[in-house]
Amino acid sequence: MPTTPTATWNRHHVLTLADFTKAEYNIVLQTAASFQEVLSRRTKKVPSLQGQVVANLFFEASTRTRSSFELAAKRLSADTLNFASATSSITKGETILDTAKTYLAMGTDIMVIRHREAGVPQAIAAEMDRLGVRVSVLNAGDGQHEHPSQALLDLFTICSLIDPENPRLQLLKNKKIAIVGDILHSRVARSNIWSLTASGAQVHLAAPPTLLPQLFADYVKDEEVGEDERGRGGEGERGKIPNSESNIQNRNLFIHWQLEPALKDADFVMTLRLQKERMTGHLLPSLREYHQMFGITRTKLQLCQPSVKVLHPGPVNRGVEISSDLMDDPEFSLIPAQVTSGVAVRMALLYLIGSGKS
Amino acid sequence: MPTTPTATWNRHHVLTLADFTKAEYNIVLQTAASFQEVLSRRTKKVPSLQGQVVANLFFEASTRTRSSFELAAKRLSADTLNFASATSSITKGETILDTAKTYLAMGTDIMVIRHREAGVPQAIAAEMDRLGVRVSVLNAGDGQHEHPSQALLDLFTICSLIDPENPRLQLLKNKKIAIVGDILHSRVARSNIWSLTASGAQVHLAAPPTLLPQLFADYVKDEEVGEDERGRGGEGERGKIPNSESNIQNRNLFIHWQLEPALKDADFVMTLRLQKERMTGHLLPSLREYHQMFGITRTKLQLCQPSVKVLHPGPVNRGVEISSDLMDDPEFSLIPAQVTSGVAVRMALLYLIGSGKS
Amino acid sequence: MPTTPTATWNRHHVLTLADFTKAEYNIVLQTAASFQEVLSRRTKKVPSLQGQVVANLFFEASTRTRSSFELAAKRLSADTLNFASATSSITKGETILDTAKTYLAMGTDIMVIRHREAGVPQAIAAEMDRLGVRVSVLNAGDGQHEHPSQALLDLFTICSLIDPENPRLQLLKNKKIAIVGDILHSRVARSNIWSLTASGAQVHLAAPPTLLPQLFADYVKDEEVGEDERGRGGEGERGKIPNSESNIQNRNLFIHWQLEPALKDADFVMTLRLQKERMTGHLLPSLREYHQMFGITRTKLQLCQPSVKVLHPGPVNRGVEISSDLMDDPEFSLIPAQVTSGVAVRMALLYLIGSGKS
Repeated sequence: MPTTPTATWNRHHVLTLADFTKAEYNIVLQTAASFQEVLSRRTKKVPSLQGQVVANLFFEASTRTRSSFELAAKRLSADTLNFASATSSITKGETILDTAKTYLAMGTDIMVIRHREAGVPQAIAAEMDRLGVRVSVLNAGDGQHEHPSQALLDLFTICSLIDPENPRLQLLKNKKIAIVGDILHSRVARSNIWSLTASGAQVHLAAPPTLLPQLFADYVKDEEVGEDERGRGGEGERGKIPNSESNIQNRNLFIHWQLEPALKDADFVMTLRLQKERMTGHLLPSLREYHQMFGITRTKLQLCQPSVKVLHPGPVNRGVEISSDLMDDPEFSLIPAQVTSGVAVRMALLYLIGSGKS
Repeated sequence: MPTTPTATWNRHHVLTLADFTKAEYNIVLQTAASFQEVLSRRTKKVPSLQGQVVANLFFEASTRTRSSFELAAKRLSADTLNFASATSSITKGETILDTAKTYLAMGTDIMVIRHREAGVPQAIAAEMDRLGVRVSVLNAGDGQHEHPSQALLDLFTICSLIDPENPRLQLLKNKKIAIVGDILHSRVARSNIWSLTASGAQVHLAAPPTLLPQLFADYVKDEEVGEDERGRGGEGERGKIPNSESNIQNRNLFIHWQLEPALKDADFVMTLRLQKERMTGHLLPSLREYHQMFGITRTKLQLCQPSVKVLHPGPVNRGVEISSDLMDDPEFSLIPAQVTSGVAVRMALLYLIGSGKS
Repeated sequence: MPTTPTATWNRHHVLTLADFTKAEYNIVLQTAASFQEVLSRRTKKVPSLQGQVVANLFFEASTRTRSSFELAAKRLSADTLNFASATSSITKGETILDTAKTYLAMGTDIMVIRHREAGVPQAIAAEMDRLGVRVSVLNAGDGQHEHPSQALLDLFTICSLIDPENPRLQLLKNKKIAIVGDILHSRVARSNIWSLTASGAQVHLAAPPTLLPQLFADYVKDEEVGEDERGRGGEGERGKIPNSESNIQNRNLFIHWQLEPALKDADFVMTLRLQKERMTGHLLPSLREYHQMFGITRTKLQLCQPSVKVLHPGPVNRGVEISSDLMDDPEFSLIPAQVTSGVAVRMALLYLIGSGKS
């Protein structure tokens, strides 16, 4: 069991990283580090959540994330229940809140929730709080909103690379991190923007204009906008975000319509999954053209720091977001490390929100 | 582990409540009460079925009931196997009995079976007995026939409310219990009629004529039948049921085509799920009209005892069988308690039929 | 835990039986025998793989085989993860190797893989070896290629029948074993040919010409070929197989286009599942005609040794590959014994490839 100072952990649900404190980030990182150490032992299980029930309520299919949470729960000796909407009573007309309350009444201690609509985990958490029950909710991805455990595992992967013994938020101070691809539709990007800007890193977003939130369009940096595009974008301003998202105001956030300025001297490049179905919405010319413009290749990486590393939340469309050879190159790719970190970080989250319960 | 007198428990399968004795009902209630107590402890697991295999063979999809059985089995430290017909070799032409025999040969100790056809669990149990094996079968819902564990959890929920320390059948003596809705198609109603009439409660069924078994039509109470309907119904007689169902003869069973006489002074109101697909069979006018006539609301509950409680087996069609606000009102709704009871009652059933095995 | 001499076990993956040594067959048989004994005890679990993760990656649906592996893993106290392609990110464009690497990175120790394409488990194993990781791969059926655990459980079933205390390969020396049915498409047949010919048994294949590999056509025994078929077959030679499959050269393998010579004096008859969809490919006249010609019945069994036993890998098309009454007759049918053996043999395989890991 971890010896980290969880006394200062007061968060009951993990729904968003928007209000995460630096102390909370560091507790997650340290707890995950101690579980990473557990996972390297002969016996990889700890009895922390023995007798507790973790229900994976996946209203949107995801084998990868569900397996990661399931394994994390089992490593903590919890009992797990899996719910997938395809075989559920959702199809019988029950509401999502009713489904959650059913699992609550069965004795679930922690609900891990994924849904294609933004806000569902928050709504379930609010209902649990209203009912005065001690059930915790963990957002495993809600629509295009957030995916906190993914961003935390990305954070842990990067920090652990810099200092495996003592991963901490401060390690990213002034590191340049590029986030490349479909920012508009990416819950992974949203959560990562919160954690990375909180760390003091310089976060550079690069996406074609059609895949960037409208909100950001006014902040594209001037020099990147071609003559014909100037009318659409306008003069960007460093890290200045309108009041409607005031929390990220004055953070080191930069917006680009082209890849090169984001990659220049970057320490880390986070690529995002491209939903191929975006093509049908005419948001993209062709996969081939997308790869030419925003796909990460060895050649393009030469713009970055020599020690640059590439991340991707998976599953990867090889040859689209990233060239196939680069993805498999252990010198550059942190993708397997991300998956491994995922189990440790999810153990940490389940442990932190679950350990006060029984 | 429970200290109840299980020595008197001789039932090997739980397929129907038609032949349950009062002693058996009471053993289930007492065993469930002791497991309910276990579930409130820090460590919610007992080693009763360690090393045993509980296979959930769900030929009809049901996340709720399957999860409840799965959790009950895990709380008893059994290993669980889940079988869902969608991914099964049923689609490859194997018979259901062959599937069951395959799970038998793998070493399954208890089979929990749901099927859309009435009689399947019975057929499998008969085959197991014919083979001389010690495998137990638990009916988790067969067609429109029975759903014994649901009725037992309803019974436990009601009895526990009256006397949490010592829930027992006798507590329902002379209580008035209304069962409202689609009696015709409801396996839940069928099983509940057995258990509730056995308890000595006065059981009042209320349903539109099209959703009541033809068998019952002759016994609708006279005063409720309007001029135009008299030809269809006829004079009812209290608790008198034809010979073909002689077991429930002389029990306190009353049949109504209208809601009000069933609700009058009722202590408990059990609502039944309305399968919306019944609409296509022209058995119902509209959901709205159904709700007006048979949906349970605060207003209608004023006919009942002030302490009346409402049950529903779930999943609920909010605003159809029951008004949405009533469903969520802890003063009236026992629905969450039913789900919680479900785990304890299923633990009791698995324990009782499984404990003599290994 | 088994006391068998596993010191001599050096195989890291189980992908094919083509290169299995006699010593390896015997280690599997002896280890399975000791687990069979464990399964008869009160507590059927052993802690051999505690803390290890067994991932069932089933890219092709199979409840039966997946449940058998899952139960075997649980009996060894491993944690299990189930992956089914229907709900997987395969549909999101990820490659199979990427899926496997994701499960690797999560901490999987053993991958049990089924895929409709031949060679997938081999490709994954090769990739794991290339990466220098200690993950083991177990082929649970790949296309029409191999199904080693099925052939090993068949072998164990037969050998255990002859000498339950000490099942060993030599027991089959000079036994006559008929394999009947769709040899062409059967991975079960392929794997069984390797193990049975290795044992020194006389293996007789019987299939209609359209369901026999072209390779074998030249080796159909002369006397069986009618005038009109002679042109297609030609003079067969005992056990002589072309160089392309040199490993089975000089083994006692016989090919027949008719059932009777294969059954004559046979000690065991292995029937193969007939994929009904073969009908659409015009490879078969009708199921009824197939049953008349190649279906196993009591009458046809009179050609065999009086003690003859019948096997089938399941699921059975009753009345097609085998008559329904025969399948249920414990005097002749080893089908339930095969399923039971399956758990013990899979425990043995998981134990043997997994025990050196942690």
